[in-house]
Amino acid sequence: VRIGVIGTGRIGRMHAQLLAREIDGATVPAVADAVPAVAERVAADLGAEAATIDEVLASPAVDAVAICTSTDTHVDLVVRAAQAGKAIFCEKPVSLDLAQVDRALAAVASAGVPFMVGFNRRFDPGHASVHSAVRSGQIGELHVLRITSRDPSPPPPAYVAVSGGIFLDMTIHDFDMARHVVGSEVVEVFARGAVRVDPLIGEAGDVDTAVVVLTHEDGTLTTIDNSRQAVYGFDQRIEAFGSLGMAVSDNPARHAGWVRTATATAAQPLPWFFLERYLESYRQEWAAFVTYLRDGGPSPVDPEAGRAPVLIGIAATRSLREGRPVAIAEVQ
Amino acid sequence: VRIGVIGTGRIGRMHAQLLAREIDGATVPAVADAVPAVAERVAADLGAEAATIDEVLASPAVDAVAICTSTDTHVDLVVRAAQAGKAIFCEKPVSLDLAQVDRALAAVASAGVPFMVGFNRRFDPGHASVHSAVRSGQIGELHVLRITSRDPSPPPPAYVAVSGGIFLDMTIHDFDMARHVVGSEVVEVFARGAVRVDPLIGEAGDVDTAVVVLTHEDGTLTTIDNSRQAVYGFDQRIEAFGSLGMAVSDNPARHAGWVRTATATAAQPLPWFFLERYLESYRQEWAAFVTYLRDGGPSPVDPEAGRAPVLIGIAATRSLREGRPVAIAEVQ
Amino acid sequence: VRIGVIGTGRIGRMHAQLLAREIDGATVPAVADAVPAVAERVAADLGAEAATIDEVLASPAVDAVAICTSTDTHVDLVVRAAQAGKAIFCEKPVSLDLAQVDRALAAVASAGVPFMVGFNRRFDPGHASVHSAVRSGQIGELHVLRITSRDPSPPPPAYVAVSGGIFLDMTIHDFDMARHVVGSEVVEVFARGAVRVDPLIGEAGDVDTAVVVLTHEDGTLTTIDNSRQAVYGFDQRIEAFGSLGMAVSDNPARHAGWVRTATATAAQPLPWFFLERYLESYRQEWAAFVTYLRDGGPSPVDPEAGRAPVLIGIAATRSLREGRPVAIAEVQ
Amino acid sequence: VRIGVIGTGRIGRMHAQLLAREIDGATVPAVADAVPAVAERVAADLGAEAATIDEVLASPAVDAVAICTSTDTHVDLVVRAAQAGKAIFCEKPVSLDLAQVDRALAAVASAGVPFMVGFNRRFDPGHASVHSAVRSGQIGELHVLRITSRDPSPPPPAYVAVSGGIFLDMTIHDFDMARHVVGSEVVEVFARGAVRVDPLIGEAGDVDTAVVVLTHEDGTLTTIDNSRQAVYGFDQRIEAFGSLGMAVSDNPARHAGWVRTATATAAQPLPWFFLERYLESYRQEWAAFVTYLRDGGPSPVDPEAGRAPVLIGIAATRSLREGRPVAIAEVQ
Repeated sequence: VRIGVIGTGRIGRMHAQLLAREIDGATVPAVADAVPAVAERVAADLGAEAATIDEVLASPAVDAVAICTSTDTHVDLVVRAAQAGKAIFCEKPVSLDLAQVDRALAAVASAGVPFMVGFNRRFDPGHASVHSAVRSGQIGELHVLRITSRDPSPPPPAYVAVSGGIFLDMTIHDFDMARHVVGSEVVEVFARGAVRVDPLIGEAGDVDTAVVVLTHEDGTLTTIDNSRQAVYGFDQRIEAFGSLGMAVSDNPARHAGWVRTATATAAQPLPWFFLERYLESYRQEWAAFVTYLRDGGPSPVDPEAGRAPVLIGIAATRSLREGRPVAIAEVQ
Repeated sequence: VRIGVIGTGRIGRMHAQLLAREIDGATVPAVADAVPAVAERVAADLGAEAATIDEVLASPAVDAVAICTSTDTHVDLVVRAAQAGKAIFCEKPVSLDLAQVDRALAAVASAGVPFMVGFNRRFDPGHASVHSAVRSGQIGELHVLRITSRDPSPPPPAYVAVSGGIFLDMTIHDFDMARHVVGSEVVEVFARGAVRVDPLIGEAGDVDTAVVVLTHEDGTLTTIDNSRQAVYGFDQRIEAFGSLGMAVSDNPARHAGWVRTATATAAQPLPWFFLERYLESYRQEWAAFVTYLRDGGPSPVDPEAGRAPVLIGIAATRSLREGRPVAIAEVQ
Repeated sequence: VRIGVIGTGRIGRMHAQLLAREIDGATVPAVADAVPAVAERVAADLGAEAATIDEVLASPAVDAVAICTSTDTHVDLVVRAAQAGKAIFCEKPVSLDLAQVDRALAAVASAGVPFMVGFNRRFDPGHASVHSAVRSGQIGELHVLRITSRDPSPPPPAYVAVSGGIFLDMTIHDFDMARHVVGSEVVEVFARGAVRVDPLIGEAGDVDTAVVVLTHEDGTLTTIDNSRQAVYGFDQRIEAFGSLGMAVSDNPARHAGWVRTATATAAQPLPWFFLERYLESYRQEWAAFVTYLRDGGPSPVDPEAGRAPVLIGIAATRSLREGRPVAIAEVQ
Repeated sequence: VRIGVIGTGRIGRMHAQLLAREIDGATVPAVADAVPAVAERVAADLGAEAATIDEVLASPAVDAVAICTSTDTHVDLVVRAAQAGKAIFCEKPVSLDLAQVDRALAAVASAGVPFMVGFNRRFDPGHASVHSAVRSGQIGELHVLRITSRDPSPPPPAYVAVSGGIFLDMTIHDFDMARHVVGSEVVEVFARGAVRVDPLIGEAGDVDTAVVVLTHEDGTLTTIDNSRQAVYGFDQRIEAFGSLGMAVSDNPARHAGWVRTATATAAQPLPWFFLERYLESYRQEWAAFVTYLRDGGPSPVDPEAGRAPVLIGIAATRSLREGRPVAIAEVQ
């Protein structure tokens, strides 16, 4: 599969490197970026061609595009790529505007091109093992899902102000995971939040600490707790509890060394950086994309994943403001 | 300290044995039970005297009483013991009826006798280590508390029907723990529940699976998840997350043996029975009671612990029924 | 089973308490001690009778005796108890003198009475799980056994001088475990030792740090490492490695609480005291004794366990001194 | 640093890829291989030049060489590279023939070029944390070192026959680690071995299961246990025990997912392949090489590491054959 990478900032460059070097069956013929010099540097590094976005979309040497630009440009690019008949990988979120999401999904549906949203955490080996334990019936009927998702350090308040709020910026990953693991849509959201980490985040109109309860259509309950700052590192855990047992994705350690002394048994703190923590998930994500393009079948991250987590995020934001549970039907 | 044990069913007999044999500074001069033959058997086993409740309350050889009878008799016994000038240990809950709780607490206050409610989980060494990490400032300012509390198997539906509901029967332990660890009163409760384990529990008007969000006065958020049936054993965990880190009380293993084969690394399931899981907490509870009587100071489990968890349970029950967060002030 | 306890020092008193209070099917009609006042105190505590050793051995109310006196008196007591027709539990070691051991075993064999040596570690739930994984074939054919056995703090040098040396005093437990888990006799011993903990131990003619390699008749290799001082607590681990996997008995934690901060993830150090670490093994040991007396069958700790570990200890001592592997046949 | 890679088989290709793509400060201008087509494929992949060995050694564009050819060619290449004034990284072992090792080291010393042996395990983050805990004094004076090193599956018997035997082929890594962590040379070796995995290995004159005791000059004792086949994966552990505690490098998990059911708590088996297990060690190894070349100082893997582990392996082989401890002085 020949994949043109559009947007070669931090995340796009990582994707381009993985595709060019580590993913069996993938090549990167061309890369493009709003800043041509950035694209050229990445291209040189990978032996790819630096091109304009137009050139990538028009190139017969490109089977698929990876859209890794800033969120506000996603929808236009998805529409154009769909019209150009390219298979599409689009970084998450497609858009935080539901009408825009719908426009993108409509273009994809109309063109009939393969489409996958970049919710990479689904492909983390630990998280995937929880999903697989649920799907396989190993833990029976699912009753409760618990997600803990805490960042190592908060973004700058300036970013917070334009981020759409914690639920659309950060918890959106957890909303996707809840849908993915439970396999039943969310029908109601209750959210509580607080400003505990940084008063500037409060002044920017957001919270930095949050707890969410999701009620799924099939009765399963999901709890999520978030923080913008876990001083011990990137804390990412999932626990699925069901009638036959429990499947857990715990935090991986940096390494397996530890020390026991007279006062304590001590190990390393957690991985800090999301690329360190989730690198393997990106590899597996691309492997799934290549397989999907080769073998067909449903998308590894369905188009609805571009929409539903945004809806849940909007409902959570409203719940927080109004102090009551909000039905998804209210915000649809 | 000479402690008369009133009520020698399963839990009372365990208390009597611990007091007579394992707790430094405690003796059991007399035991009483509604069924005299039961008291006699326990008395014979421990070298204590079998007596009537009246005799225990009147005996100059008794400094304190342990009230271990059925819940509906607690308040009368507390009042009588207070009037008799005895120090009082009362099994939890004092009562599920707030007016009755108040009557008991008033009698205690008026008599000025030492009083401790039997919320044993506070004294579990793992849970206590979380409490102590919070109190000592080791994890900084507390932001989120997470409690998982799952029983190994559900009680009979007949019991469920008269239990007061999951929140007053089972989650009440977690409500007490939330108050104890956070150190700030609960002001609002949101609860969601489902019948996933046994339809008969639903027919009895209760749920068997529940998720609760507590908002504390100081802004801390607590999440609780409960199930009446964890097939792998008694699942009891607490996690306190704060500005400087996280303190966790994990499930203890039955023993530290495990096996690694070509297909898996496998350990034992969890302890099953609450007496197995929490035995050490009962020992520590009694040690705290004896110290309290000897050295004075505040009660290890304050009288308010007889009241606040019941209030939270009533609010949770209403939240579940009405589908909205309920302020404690509404049910006071 | 009515068990008379002879010797009510620290270990004997613990045995008497367990038998009187916790072991189903066991009672303690009488206890005896070289210091009558000591026996009287224990007797009073347990509702047993304080008696002389002669009285215990002669009493028709005693089915079995627990010999918990100092090592040098074991053999005479075993012989007398055997002649009196009592079932016998004898604390380890029976004797460090092979001729004496043989005298005791001969008396037992001649009287045909049940006999069990008190190697309690066999009954530790974690260690027993390793034994059972080997016996059941779960880890296939056994290849290597690894035992780590480190005390929290060294005994006084005065004790060391009369202890028989580290291999007969401390490693003897590990020799018994090696025989027990492997199920094949040891044929050769290689030992290396050093004085690293306390020079006074060296002056007393002993080592405080040791490594031993045992070759079993069936080709299995066992490695043991010992230290008289692990500052972090009582370190007791066993690992059996075989053709289908590995079974491990790890150190149990004091409790399951831990803390994660910016600098480390930290748990409690290990249990310190042998009664804390191995209490459950004593309970299980007595349960096995009672079952053995009731149901018959082979002794849970065979009479040969009174002899073989001593032989291995003698061979290890010689190996250390002569700097070469020593065959068991040389010291037999 | 411009590094020419000589030998582009499995390990050489991995080194070339890491150097070209992941190691800051390293580039790969040229690669060479005995089979030119192999070098050309790797060169094309990395944008390097395919060259002959002579060309690499003569090239002014090459600062250092990575010698990744088969063991029997190492010494000649080291000598030639030294004469050419190149800095040298040589895969382990330099040679299994002591005279040859000495020839290589003499050439290096005479040319005064930087030289590092590829004992990558020193750079594994977990193992390195043990080394650092020992060097920093965190665990006090070192008393005992325990190394477990088990391969997931045995090599073909044909390979075994020419491998030099388990101690020179496999345990050599552990001998290097023992020297590295203890920081004191080995003076005596005792080895025991057995054929438990595959009778063909025995017919090839080797053992597949081994236990080794090393005595270091400073009195520290090291135990090593090896197996050619751990069915559960690549089992690589180190434990350093000292006067102030213990530092452990445990096996890393494949991922942090696990499942708890009514019968067991189960996690994934271990990583299987050495490139999976030790990939990070190779990255760190190269980072250390680059730093060494830039900043000078002692080699991260000293030249003596080319010699001492071979000596210990020869002594271990003799100990196994002769059934006695063998002093290093005997084989020097």
